[in-house]
Amino acid sequence: MKLVVVGSVGLDDVETPAGKVEGALGGSAIYFSLAASPFTRVGFVGVVGDDFPEGAITLLEEKGVDTRGLERREGRTFRWAGRYHEDINVRDTLLTELNVFEHFHPILPADYRETEYLFLGNIHPELQLDVLEQAGNAKFIAMDTMNFWIDGAPKQLEQVLGKVHAVLINDSEARELSGHNNIVRAARAIEAMGPELIVVKRGEYGALIYRDDDYFFAPGFPLENVVDPTGAGDSFAGGFMGYVAHQDSTDWATICQATIAGSTLASYSVESFSVDRLRDLTPTDIAARAEAFRAITHFPTLEIGSNGDLS
Amino acid sequence: MKLVVVGSVGLDDVETPAGKVEGALGGSAIYFSLAASPFTRVGFVGVVGDDFPEGAITLLEEKGVDTRGLERREGRTFRWAGRYHEDINVRDTLLTELNVFEHFHPILPADYRETEYLFLGNIHPELQLDVLEQAGNAKFIAMDTMNFWIDGAPKQLEQVLGKVHAVLINDSEARELSGHNNIVRAARAIEAMGPELIVVKRGEYGALIYRDDDYFFAPGFPLENVVDPTGAGDSFAGGFMGYVAHQDSTDWATICQATIAGSTLASYSVESFSVDRLRDLTPTDIAARAEAFRAITHFPTLEIGSNGDLS
Repeated sequence: MKLVVVGSVGLDDVETPAGKVEGALGGSAIYFSLAASPFTRVGFVGVVGDDFPEGAITLLEEKGVDTRGLERREGRTFRWAGRYHEDINVRDTLLTELNVFEHFHPILPADYRETEYLFLGNIHPELQLDVLEQAGNAKFIAMDTMNFWIDGAPKQLEQVLGKVHAVLINDSEARELSGHNNIVRAARAIEAMGPELIVVKRGEYGALIYRDDDYFFAPGFPLENVVDPTGAGDSFAGGFMGYVAHQDSTDWATICQATIAGSTLASYSVESFSVDRLRDLTPTDIAARAEAFRAITHFPTLEIGSNGDLS
Repeated sequence: MKLVVVGSVGLDDVETPAGKVEGALGGSAIYFSLAASPFTRVGFVGVVGDDFPEGAITLLEEKGVDTRGLERREGRTFRWAGRYHEDINVRDTLLTELNVFEHFHPILPADYRETEYLFLGNIHPELQLDVLEQAGNAKFIAMDTMNFWIDGAPKQLEQVLGKVHAVLINDSEARELSGHNNIVRAARAIEAMGPELIVVKRGEYGALIYRDDDYFFAPGFPLENVVDPTGAGDSFAGGFMGYVAHQDSTDWATICQATIAGSTLASYSVESFSVDRLRDLTPTDIAARAEAFRAITHFPTLEIGSNGDLS
């Protein structure tokens, strides 16, 4: 197995200015694995209840996702409901029902434990540590987290941070975790906690990557119709890690390309509800948008006269 | 005259987490003209009182800024005082004293009226219209504005928007002016008001340029020490318009380069209080940072297999 993800699987009720869906496929591991699937085979670790639609498993398998790590339990699948405002950057959580996810203890199939690339989705740091016990020899391990764990489980989070190569984190979470408002200082402070690579997700403003005093910035893709922002960060992570695993490299050029791959998958993901856009995405679509990112960020060398060129 | 700016000239008291200054040189036309001065000769239109330091005028002239449009009146120069928070994106205005600026009526010297490039700084739309009466034949006219005029003088602002080629505006002001939260829709709605080129300034997140369904994004430069954000937007405008005037072109490649020039000048400006960093900036400094912008935004073409490359 080249890449393994451990995270949530859910059924979401989502309402946005563009419409609404009920019981739609969601959860960090779902978005991640579908976004990574164009690049590499993904081993999937999560838990669902007996209400989980068989069609979703078929979809994952059609996309080449290995579902042997998907545990099925009696009971209901994790449910989340949210409503996005007219300003789609703002949302209210209406419901969080953990259900079978409450007692999730990730068990990795034997061959998953030899994975080279590992992504720890946004779950309790205790569970992330459990996964690291099983697959901690992976050569590149990335993690997500959130303010809920920064506040609620800081000691365990610190342990996880000490064992991973990369952290993907929101802008405001990076500031909270580091205690710095300045994002450069925040990145350096998080680097000192363990991870060598810091990925700051900035929503509509894109993403910032930091490693060893190098930076790379990708903008958010300009979209007239953002239908459903749910899962954008997980789609970014899937595209990013999928590309890294596909290239089997973490050199800086690959990391920059992977950031564009992540931004590409995230930008497609938000164009439809749930995973609708991810399910029919082709390599041609991905290559086209990655090139569109080039068009909106690249520029010719400036022509600057050495004498100041007063005219 | 290649480029003319009309705007405010002030003496600022500024306090930031990095320290404080009193009676420091400030105002939109000051930042603009010093930021444009490495690229082209700038004609300066503004008003000061009899307390305005002679040294500031000498500085402008040393930088090749034409100060014949600087009116000197009896009374005190415009004064502004502000305090930036620990989160340097937030500031409180402590004092605004218009003084001689209250009765400012911009009069352009005869040769300024033949300028090819014109920048209308953030002043009352009535005054912007006054300037357009005098120099409205310029081939590329850009304007700044702010929420104070969007709310307070919408009719006159609409008239100005109908007569300019470009508008430089903050993120939140673009949303307010257009009535759209989505920035793509906001840009298109502002385009429909007149300007063909929309420059959205996003503070630490950089700038977004829109024209005729083309986009270009520049990130904010990653700075560990932001000493004083005052004048960042005006420095951006100066670098942007200075570069356009220097190249004497508004083709898309030049606009993208000009965005990097503006971002470069803005990033240097905030590294010191007042205009301290702009006054000693060399073409070599500018070229070096413009290249640093390339390093943090450019990436090699992604390697994407046409078959999805499952491994």
